[in-house]
Amino acid sequence: MTEPTKFTLTEDRIPTHWVNLMADLPGDPLPPLNPGTMEPAGPDDLTPIFPMALIGQEVSADPEVEIPEPVREVYKLWRPTPLYRAHRLERALDTPARIYYKYEGVSPAGSHKPNSAVAQAYANKEAGVERLATETGAGQWGSALALACSLFGLECVVYMVGASYDQKPYRRAMMESWGATVIRSPSDTTDSGRAQAAHPTGSLGIAISEAVEVAAGDADTNYALGSVLNHVCLHQTVIGQEALAQMEMAGDEPDVVVGCVGGDSNFAGMAFPFIRRVLRGEARTRFVAAEPAACPTLTRGVYRYDFGDTVGLTPLMPMYTLGHDFVPPPVHAGGLRYHGDSPLVCALVKQGLVEARAYKQNETFEAALRFARTEAILPAPEPAHAIRAVIDEAKAAKQAGEQRVILLNLCGHGHFDMSAYEAYIAGKLEDPEFSEADMEAALERLPEAPAIA
Amino acid sequence: MTEPTKFTLTEDRIPTHWVNLMADLPGDPLPPLNPGTMEPAGPDDLTPIFPMALIGQEVSADPEVEIPEPVREVYKLWRPTPLYRAHRLERALDTPARIYYKYEGVSPAGSHKPNSAVAQAYANKEAGVERLATETGAGQWGSALALACSLFGLECVVYMVGASYDQKPYRRAMMESWGATVIRSPSDTTDSGRAQAAHPTGSLGIAISEAVEVAAGDADTNYALGSVLNHVCLHQTVIGQEALAQMEMAGDEPDVVVGCVGGDSNFAGMAFPFIRRVLRGEARTRFVAAEPAACPTLTRGVYRYDFGDTVGLTPLMPMYTLGHDFVPPPVHAGGLRYHGDSPLVCALVKQGLVEARAYKQNETFEAALRFARTEAILPAPEPAHAIRAVIDEAKAAKQAGEQRVILLNLCGHGHFDMSAYEAYIAGKLEDPEFSEADMEAALERLPEAPAIA
Repeated sequence: MTEPTKFTLTEDRIPTHWVNLMADLPGDPLPPLNPGTMEPAGPDDLTPIFPMALIGQEVSADPEVEIPEPVREVYKLWRPTPLYRAHRLERALDTPARIYYKYEGVSPAGSHKPNSAVAQAYANKEAGVERLATETGAGQWGSALALACSLFGLECVVYMVGASYDQKPYRRAMMESWGATVIRSPSDTTDSGRAQAAHPTGSLGIAISEAVEVAAGDADTNYALGSVLNHVCLHQTVIGQEALAQMEMAGDEPDVVVGCVGGDSNFAGMAFPFIRRVLRGEARTRFVAAEPAACPTLTRGVYRYDFGDTVGLTPLMPMYTLGHDFVPPPVHAGGLRYHGDSPLVCALVKQGLVEARAYKQNETFEAALRFARTEAILPAPEPAHAIRAVIDEAKAAKQAGEQRVILLNLCGHGHFDMSAYEAYIAGKLEDPEFSEADMEAALERLPEAPAIA
Repeated sequence: MTEPTKFTLTEDRIPTHWVNLMADLPGDPLPPLNPGTMEPAGPDDLTPIFPMALIGQEVSADPEVEIPEPVREVYKLWRPTPLYRAHRLERALDTPARIYYKYEGVSPAGSHKPNSAVAQAYANKEAGVERLATETGAGQWGSALALACSLFGLECVVYMVGASYDQKPYRRAMMESWGATVIRSPSDTTDSGRAQAAHPTGSLGIAISEAVEVAAGDADTNYALGSVLNHVCLHQTVIGQEALAQMEMAGDEPDVVVGCVGGDSNFAGMAFPFIRRVLRGEARTRFVAAEPAACPTLTRGVYRYDFGDTVGLTPLMPMYTLGHDFVPPPVHAGGLRYHGDSPLVCALVKQGLVEARAYKQNETFEAALRFARTEAILPAPEPAHAIRAVIDEAKAAKQAGEQRVILLNLCGHGHFDMSAYEAYIAGKLEDPEFSEADMEAALERLPEAPAIA
């Protein structure tokens, strides 16, 4: 019990640069495509909805991108985040593994999402934009952007997936407390929304279509996305860089790095600085991406070009996909209910650098409760998937008699997900099935696009 | 903007001792009284519900009490908590004041409450107790004790005030996630509960009666209280000790220390280490205690002996009181809806060392929203009272042209109080009136007891 528990960095240790993994990836990255021309999407495709600074980050070939000082100043409100050694969980599992977790839930919005929201709000403010439009599913990203806009004096409009809007009034109240306008999606404020009125519970893909439409149609409004894109993954690399420094403080080297994946921003944020070391031959590390069995993009999807949204307003992106109009069954990990994944992470999975695993809802909540009753923190349903994978790794280490070192990104708390815990404790949580037939049908509606080698 | 924002201590800086202010208070403390004999309540009055270690802390005359190592180990899961300089709030107020806040919301239960819950669970576990019974209003204390019991392998039963039980299912789910049993109060599981069936929405005083009755009637069960008592205030002094070290890092000396008061544990935890310096002539500091105008114990109550609970099962305590069966009107700051206050804090108010101020509900939420939109954190309704006082102090400093240094204890976040924010934003939050007539009537039902000089 005298071994250290918490590894703390002072605010001067907030990274000065983001890590751009693209610079280290072998070969040229597959470009996004303009769906009309099938030519690589250029800045002209993106300027209607993104400021040039973010477009530059999206396509940057520099290995590092400097973090603007005003963004670092805001990061100080919660960063650096703590890294913990999970002594109590290790003892409960009776494992020789050493488990560490980086806790991003200390941010005011309760997750890692503000790391990118603040960077995006700042870039838009500097570009003279007055308002940001975005979508949110479970509410984590919408909360983060509402907060960031509040700090930089921008207006914020959030299209919230209908089902979440109805089920999570407190997430909505949180966004409104930070001054955002929250609109139930599908709404009658956009063509995209009106066209999807037949799907009253909405989906992330529909909400993205609505927000993109608003941004594209108004010169003073831009769009902000909380995951998937390169610049979002870039912003999140503050997580992994801090974790590298903290693991060094702990005197340990991770054998395996674990995170959950939906649009991949928390996974990328933790993993990319570690993957760069692997690509440079400086370390040997495994990477495990945990996704819901109800929306198993990486483990069951196809690798090809698809839209990022349901309606088809975005450029085509090279990724594992279940089909852009596949509607995942309702699981509480709303942040993981996305038909695609980040192109960068998909490429790493394709290359065998990242291993994907899918977990059912109940087994993830069993893991979350085990974590809460040993390590005290109540995890969000999304990282509960990663905790499930961590426990499996720790059990495997025990069976193998290995002192495996496991590093988890605990990307958020579950304070706004207690109804899911309630259902799990009452034995009423379902394990909705992934529908292969639905995916097959959605794949038949994929856009025409060049095949990926 | 290059001035430091966050003052961070590493885990080796968690205090090794709690500060016992009693040792420094002038004169002998007024003892609690056995209501049957009117003699000072001794250990025999308390052993049915508290372990000897805590009784020893309750009456200790030692200036410092060592923190058991297993308690410090658990503290490492969230302590030391950060201290912030509120640069953004200062700029928004255009004040020459320098505002600092200590943030206790980083604990897994979301408030300062686990500081004492962990100490109490440990002491009971060491004494061979199997189960703890307690009450909770808004849910902060119940959550904290559920967490602490989970970490030390104790059973936990929480009597939750009926109105909160109905309005806050997510707080209940949080306690159950940590393994506690939550019972709606008044319940039919106790005589006290059955006797109060005519008050179906319950009150903190009734819930205390139920929990004390359960503990007194079962040898394996003890009682735990989250505020008021000396040993609870003692445990919370980790807050102020850390803040002392952090203010030294900041190179600043507080002119005024501000906290909210209900049962006073967060106020005492922050203030006592600073008050000790004042009592020893080492510093000149003002102390402001902020309470709800709907339950204005310190500003409107009488100073005399009264019961701690509604039914009258506890010893009589010397305190400001509105009468033990006064039922405060419903405000969202459930943690401040208590007819009395901590005897130690009451004595300090009586002696003029602490100044009390009362605030209405809407003006506290206006302050909370201002804080959230500048400093990012969404405060709980309880510390919103203290934030109101901080803003008033900062405005007064501006008027006086003073570089006043203000230190706030931000004792918890508002993630489980979003319905209150929702009501405030919608303009539907009420300012319930304190009823002087109700207080006068309650005071007529005060127990016979010696007057306090």
